[in-house]
Amino acid sequence: MTKDLVILAYSGGLDTSCILKWLIQKNYDVVCYMADVGQNEDFQKAKQKAITIGAKDVIVEDLREEFISNYMLPAIQMGLVYENRYYLGTSLARPCISVGLVNAAKRLGANYISHGATGKGNDQVRFELSVYSLWPEGKIIAPWRLPEFFEKFQGRSDLIEYAKKENIPVAATPKEPWSTDENIMHVSYESGVLEDPSAIPPKGIYKMTRDLQQTEDYPSIIDINFEKGLPVSVRIPSGHENALLVTNFLPLVQTLNKLGGQHGIGRIDIVENRFLGLKSRGLYETPAGTILHKAHIDLEAYALDREVLRVKKYLQDKMADFVYNGFWFSPEANYTKKCLELSQESVAGTVTIQIFKGNVTILARKSSTASLYNKELVSMDVAGGFSPEDSTGFININALRLKEYSRFTKYTKF
Amino acid sequence: MTKDLVILAYSGGLDTSCILKWLIQKNYDVVCYMADVGQNEDFQKAKQKAITIGAKDVIVEDLREEFISNYMLPAIQMGLVYENRYYLGTSLARPCISVGLVNAAKRLGANYISHGATGKGNDQVRFELSVYSLWPEGKIIAPWRLPEFFEKFQGRSDLIEYAKKENIPVAATPKEPWSTDENIMHVSYESGVLEDPSAIPPKGIYKMTRDLQQTEDYPSIIDINFEKGLPVSVRIPSGHENALLVTNFLPLVQTLNKLGGQHGIGRIDIVENRFLGLKSRGLYETPAGTILHKAHIDLEAYALDREVLRVKKYLQDKMADFVYNGFWFSPEANYTKKCLELSQESVAGTVTIQIFKGNVTILARKSSTASLYNKELVSMDVAGGFSPEDSTGFININALRLKEYSRFTKYTKF
Amino acid sequence: MTKDLVILAYSGGLDTSCILKWLIQKNYDVVCYMADVGQNEDFQKAKQKAITIGAKDVIVEDLREEFISNYMLPAIQMGLVYENRYYLGTSLARPCISVGLVNAAKRLGANYISHGATGKGNDQVRFELSVYSLWPEGKIIAPWRLPEFFEKFQGRSDLIEYAKKENIPVAATPKEPWSTDENIMHVSYESGVLEDPSAIPPKGIYKMTRDLQQTEDYPSIIDINFEKGLPVSVRIPSGHENALLVTNFLPLVQTLNKLGGQHGIGRIDIVENRFLGLKSRGLYETPAGTILHKAHIDLEAYALDREVLRVKKYLQDKMADFVYNGFWFSPEANYTKKCLELSQESVAGTVTIQIFKGNVTILARKSSTASLYNKELVSMDVAGGFSPEDSTGFININALRLKEYSRFTKYTKF
Amino acid sequence: MTKDLVILAYSGGLDTSCILKWLIQKNYDVVCYMADVGQNEDFQKAKQKAITIGAKDVIVEDLREEFISNYMLPAIQMGLVYENRYYLGTSLARPCISVGLVNAAKRLGANYISHGATGKGNDQVRFELSVYSLWPEGKIIAPWRLPEFFEKFQGRSDLIEYAKKENIPVAATPKEPWSTDENIMHVSYESGVLEDPSAIPPKGIYKMTRDLQQTEDYPSIIDINFEKGLPVSVRIPSGHENALLVTNFLPLVQTLNKLGGQHGIGRIDIVENRFLGLKSRGLYETPAGTILHKAHIDLEAYALDREVLRVKKYLQDKMADFVYNGFWFSPEANYTKKCLELSQESVAGTVTIQIFKGNVTILARKSSTASLYNKELVSMDVAGGFSPEDSTGFININALRLKEYSRFTKYTKF
Repeated sequence: MTKDLVILAYSGGLDTSCILKWLIQKNYDVVCYMADVGQNEDFQKAKQKAITIGAKDVIVEDLREEFISNYMLPAIQMGLVYENRYYLGTSLARPCISVGLVNAAKRLGANYISHGATGKGNDQVRFELSVYSLWPEGKIIAPWRLPEFFEKFQGRSDLIEYAKKENIPVAATPKEPWSTDENIMHVSYESGVLEDPSAIPPKGIYKMTRDLQQTEDYPSIIDINFEKGLPVSVRIPSGHENALLVTNFLPLVQTLNKLGGQHGIGRIDIVENRFLGLKSRGLYETPAGTILHKAHIDLEAYALDREVLRVKKYLQDKMADFVYNGFWFSPEANYTKKCLELSQESVAGTVTIQIFKGNVTILARKSSTASLYNKELVSMDVAGGFSPEDSTGFININALRLKEYSRFTKYTKF
Repeated sequence: MTKDLVILAYSGGLDTSCILKWLIQKNYDVVCYMADVGQNEDFQKAKQKAITIGAKDVIVEDLREEFISNYMLPAIQMGLVYENRYYLGTSLARPCISVGLVNAAKRLGANYISHGATGKGNDQVRFELSVYSLWPEGKIIAPWRLPEFFEKFQGRSDLIEYAKKENIPVAATPKEPWSTDENIMHVSYESGVLEDPSAIPPKGIYKMTRDLQQTEDYPSIIDINFEKGLPVSVRIPSGHENALLVTNFLPLVQTLNKLGGQHGIGRIDIVENRFLGLKSRGLYETPAGTILHKAHIDLEAYALDREVLRVKKYLQDKMADFVYNGFWFSPEANYTKKCLELSQESVAGTVTIQIFKGNVTILARKSSTASLYNKELVSMDVAGGFSPEDSTGFININALRLKEYSRFTKYTKF
Repeated sequence: MTKDLVILAYSGGLDTSCILKWLIQKNYDVVCYMADVGQNEDFQKAKQKAITIGAKDVIVEDLREEFISNYMLPAIQMGLVYENRYYLGTSLARPCISVGLVNAAKRLGANYISHGATGKGNDQVRFELSVYSLWPEGKIIAPWRLPEFFEKFQGRSDLIEYAKKENIPVAATPKEPWSTDENIMHVSYESGVLEDPSAIPPKGIYKMTRDLQQTEDYPSIIDINFEKGLPVSVRIPSGHENALLVTNFLPLVQTLNKLGGQHGIGRIDIVENRFLGLKSRGLYETPAGTILHKAHIDLEAYALDREVLRVKKYLQDKMADFVYNGFWFSPEANYTKKCLELSQESVAGTVTIQIFKGNVTILARKSSTASLYNKELVSMDVAGGFSPEDSTGFININALRLKEYSRFTKYTKF
Repeated sequence: MTKDLVILAYSGGLDTSCILKWLIQKNYDVVCYMADVGQNEDFQKAKQKAITIGAKDVIVEDLREEFISNYMLPAIQMGLVYENRYYLGTSLARPCISVGLVNAAKRLGANYISHGATGKGNDQVRFELSVYSLWPEGKIIAPWRLPEFFEKFQGRSDLIEYAKKENIPVAATPKEPWSTDENIMHVSYESGVLEDPSAIPPKGIYKMTRDLQQTEDYPSIIDINFEKGLPVSVRIPSGHENALLVTNFLPLVQTLNKLGGQHGIGRIDIVENRFLGLKSRGLYETPAGTILHKAHIDLEAYALDREVLRVKKYLQDKMADFVYNGFWFSPEANYTKKCLELSQESVAGTVTIQIFKGNVTILARKSSTASLYNKELVSMDVAGGFSPEDSTGFININALRLKEYSRFTKYTKF
């Protein structure tokens, strides 16, 4: 009798290695799936480990370009920021990886997708809602939510013991006392010693960016070019009047990550609201993403009409929540994304920024197509077709409503 | 026959000095009104100048505490940011000064209030809407919108010529090629050489903050304490285990301005949308305001419920527009302000931040009353009354709607 | 050994009668709780039935005034309408009943609350979220979600069979082929033959209102008086220059229900979105609620400032969702309700309406305190302090932004 | 020397006839422009009158199909309702007429457009913002805002006297004591005796609809078919099993106007907020528009996803304000309209409604393409792939946040 086939989102770490073994022991055939979204990982070693444990096969798929093109850069174009501060690095990677998992499952005729996300977190939701949207008839095994599993493995030590017993290789170096998620857009750090929001995080946590004390002594000044709200190239001076023009998405992000890292760009330490209703504390570093977001916001404010900006603001706040909560593939995200893209038709031009000591400083911006900025009109020194008397009427009419209100309102200290 | 009395918002500069003279020549009695909102100004010298020109009297009023208590700190409590970046330093000062102008006008039985704001800007609107709200029967003389005036004075040279002719003292030092507005919250820079958004601003513009290259070499770590969303004290280490606790509003803001200035905190260079519909480029530096805003946002995210945060977000975005556009005294701002204050009842506690090289880095936060953050609940290592199986139901129910949508939607690359 | 005590939300119908028996058989002590929220019910008979089945006690509590004062009328004051059409009659009753259940549970030292709401509906959510908010340590037994129960009782016939076996009295008249929820605000009808949205509902469904063909032949004209957005009295002409003034909440609602019913007011047939993500078709009749809502909207538009109305609109749309989804007792509803009440300070006056043939027609409105309506100002025939030239300036300034946009936009057919 | 050419929006009434004469006396060449948007008007007679007065030419243009296709029906598709009640009949006609005016002006090489809208109203804004958007270099003559004109004509009697003096024909019948705007979508009534919001309007005002006492004795039941949110045809039973299928836009609207009129559909009496800040009282009757709006809302709720509906709700509220305020041709309306149209891709199907005694009663609805309504899923009697246990998890997770809040909140009466 043939066994049911499971596609396991595999990381090579202790958790998913134990899950792999456990699934095999539960009589499943398991194919491991590893998405390369830019994390620092020895995929060959991880693959070998999975085979050793008993995986039928291991798929390693390079999704870096896919992730950048279809998730990271659109998020910058749409202006997605969760609760004012978080650029959604992990939230964006989950649907991207889910597409890989579902494609593999369909290709191989699998019955199940499994993952190692825990029961209190956001990632279980993001994986599963994406999977159900893309593959409504698919089924999911989430061991960390099955009593049979989580009662057996109540802490890390149970996993290590199990690993030893089942000949699963365990890393010699002790795990860091927090958990990490890594991709080409960001690294996140949470739980463990970071769980206490009132405790200052230990030194040496960050991987992509230098501490402010170790950053470069001279600023870098670069130009970022946008078309339809998407960054399309970056110009970086490289000594003696030369400049490097980076145009493809992957090297563009890699270059900005490197440069941003050297200048300590993009770290945050926040308490955020998870979809399940818990609050959690997270640290994030997003060097290229921070640079691109700040440049995009600047150009957008320059290129878009005031009232369009306000409508777009509502949409981007909604979209950020949709993405954070795992609804990338949903009717509402599908719709809102189209609307947001529509708003970006005329967001094109160049933003000149200085990167230095953790700061992204906007120096100047140009619009390559049209901009609603009219230098003559705004100038203090030029009339530019403007009649100052009109302002009097404008103010007086705006005051009408206020004067009526004053008829029966007493403003006290306000 | 008695003359009509005008209260003139006087700055001591060339414009309002010429306006003063011009009003006198138009047969008005003029009392000059100078609000001290923390700008760097020699009030005695300005007063003397006005008397020399012919002012009947000059009122100098210290509104710094008033401005901080009733405008600047409430704006931080409410979380007001215009178009994502501007902390509204000038917009907040205008209604505060207007209260002073109206009080003076009522006290002295004046018929008019006059000001030197130009016809393309926001400040004319902010002054006049505030005045009309507080004094609906009041009248306003805005010379820069009167053809008789603006046709006579078509440029700065006309003003200088007039000043010379009328024995109005003119500063020996040439004016900077941009205009400035200054108060204890911020300094703004716009127009002149700054009008071109694609031109990098000249060096040496900023007054309150050091360039990043000149900032301190060691970080400052401070605690900011909040009650009901308002900063109430700041604790600053001052060598050998001593710490300085600054509690009153005025010294609190002064201290943070000094410290923020030394570390280069709070500069922005933006293109913004004026109420009249023009776009303009502005530079702002807001040291204490930036520190306080960032600390407040962090504590608020920690203390408030997720959904309350979202409702509050809508209100704060609306309020920021009301304030920017000059509607501080209006039914809508009156109402929205009360709602926003209501949201802050439980925003109390301490935020520990590092100020360094232009960066405000949140290190930790504590809630002095209650916080919705439950360390046990969120912990990866503790069940904390949480049943992981519940998450399965939560996800499955959330997936219902998505699966229905998938019945007739084909997700392509998304 | 003492048994665990369950408070059961009891209706006297087949479902909760079987649940009562089943709970007793599961070895619980059960006290039945019946809230009188105005439904047409023989409470004595139901009480007797529960005792016969084996309830330890039956509590019947008259919550009609409580429901009207704290839920129904505030909903009108806040302007709550779900998805543009539904006045939330059932959604509002659930938290009210939950308060009764929790109070009983606390008073009697119960361990559990149980209810007969089904697993696909909204009411389970409304009951349980309310209970958990008011009694976080409380536990809930929802038999229709327990496999042991719902597998045993797969359809109505299983329940009837069980009832016969256990000597539970079953109504002789066959049940209507749809389900009903009833209180003093409305009656709802759903499921069964109504489930198909494309099927025209059978005749004779409605209980509170007459069919249009049977309504009165002459209109009723009444005055409704509001204070702070709440209806406080209704004046109804009753022949020969007499008028009946109804002032207390309960008779006020009863009177309007009767009158509205005679005139066929307040029926809707809609497809709505449940909180679980399903769509369902429902019929509702809300006579007094419809009259009061329409009168309130009219007075509010008259009394409130334009921009306050818009801020309030956002809040009321959010609040309607909170209430529909079961979050009456939640941080967000708690906060939003306070904000909405704040908006109603000046909503006071009288609305004159005609009720006739299903229509609530506004005839006139007066403000008893202040209104922003200024007859002189708006009059075509009176200048009223208005300078028409100001409108020119107002329009020209508003056109600035549009003209800029036209510089690079070609309007086609639009 | 050639005279400047003015295109005058001409109605044939007293005001625009006097304006025509006055413009000629001011030495302009005047071409009168009359748009037929469905108002009840003798265009030939009006044309003759204009020629008699001295117009160089009179253009009468049938814009009825244009108005229905590009303004009225899109407004229904977008769901535009101003301040909850007004379907924007006049607001939609103004930009349509403006297109005609601008096209004429460009075609004839005119320098000016002139209109008879008054200085306190919305229509001046709608005309002029539309004209400036479509023809930024165009100029406008608004006599009612020119002191020279409005001081000469201070009341209707001045106009009549002038007309007599200048041989302008004046209608023998006295004007109604209110003003009217009429097109194929609606008739509006305001000012004069209607200005007092507390006065019940006189009988016999309405033109398109019968009083409830005079409506038909039997209901009409019709089917309205939609595609992409637009009504495309109406099926009306016409005796003995025949049914009339009306498919083209113009007859579709005419048919529903006639039917709606016979049944007294679509009257409202409201106080609304004008763009200038005044409040005004208006009466409107919109028979076909009301029927189509109610049918569309019903189908949309059926066809669209819950969360898409909410995003769309925000957009439609914004768009209604844009249109009311005269910003049909603006960047924000341009953008928002595209977004709203995007939301309607799947809004297709048939709504069956009963029209009777002023009521539009929804009886049933079908989706011709897909609907998110899943009868099996929602059914009480069928499991339909639904696991009731999932609801437990869903509720428990939603309760997490509420329980945390209850840790430090005491709910009192709420």
